[in-house]
Amino acid sequence: MTPIVILGSLAAIASTISFAPQAIKIIRTRQTKDISLGMYAITVTAFALWCAYGVLLGQWPLIASNSICLVLSGFILVMKLLPRRAKDKVADAVTPKD
Amino acid sequence: MTPIVILGSLAAIASTISFAPQAIKIIRTRQTKDISLGMYAITVTAFALWCAYGVLLGQWPLIASNSICLVLSGFILVMKLLPRRAKDKVADAVTPKD
Repeated sequence: MTPIVILGSLAAIASTISFAPQAIKIIRTRQTKDISLGMYAITVTAFALWCAYGVLLGQWPLIASNSICLVLSGFILVMKLLPRRAKDKVADAVTPKD
Repeated sequence: MTPIVILGSLAAIASTISFAPQAIKIIRTRQTKDISLGMYAITVTAFALWCAYGVLLGQWPLIASNSICLVLSGFILVMKLLPRRAKDKVADAVTPKD
């Protein structure tokens, strides 16, 4: 692997997992007040477009990476939009039982 | 332009501007409690790597798009890390006077 490929791979891995800490934080705190609805509306649209682009090109690295981002950012958007009680229900459902 | 190029361009534009609403929200509300530090630490690292990747490849579309994302997500990370008083100072400094 060349340094360019290594750099690009690290960048792709970091981008792909970047939304996970925010999703985990929301599950833990159930708070989304300071999170921008506009940002996640645009972000989810962007990843949906990148996935469609990957499908048209038949490029699985694009599809795989952007699908993960779409699911994570989509979860954050849904949690932002849900009313308090529904947010708690979802967070309870995905929290591992002790 | 082919449909693939149009789709990819729309995806790139949406990705590039996606952090702007969050940055604007923070300037307006000065609140960052619900925002994940881990997410922005990873995100800023990812965009720095993508910029370096773009430089090594000599690809200005990569450099341009990822520089904008680096600046916007870097601003969000800095605001998340700053103590209250400093956050207010920065927000005041970038808020247009009436």
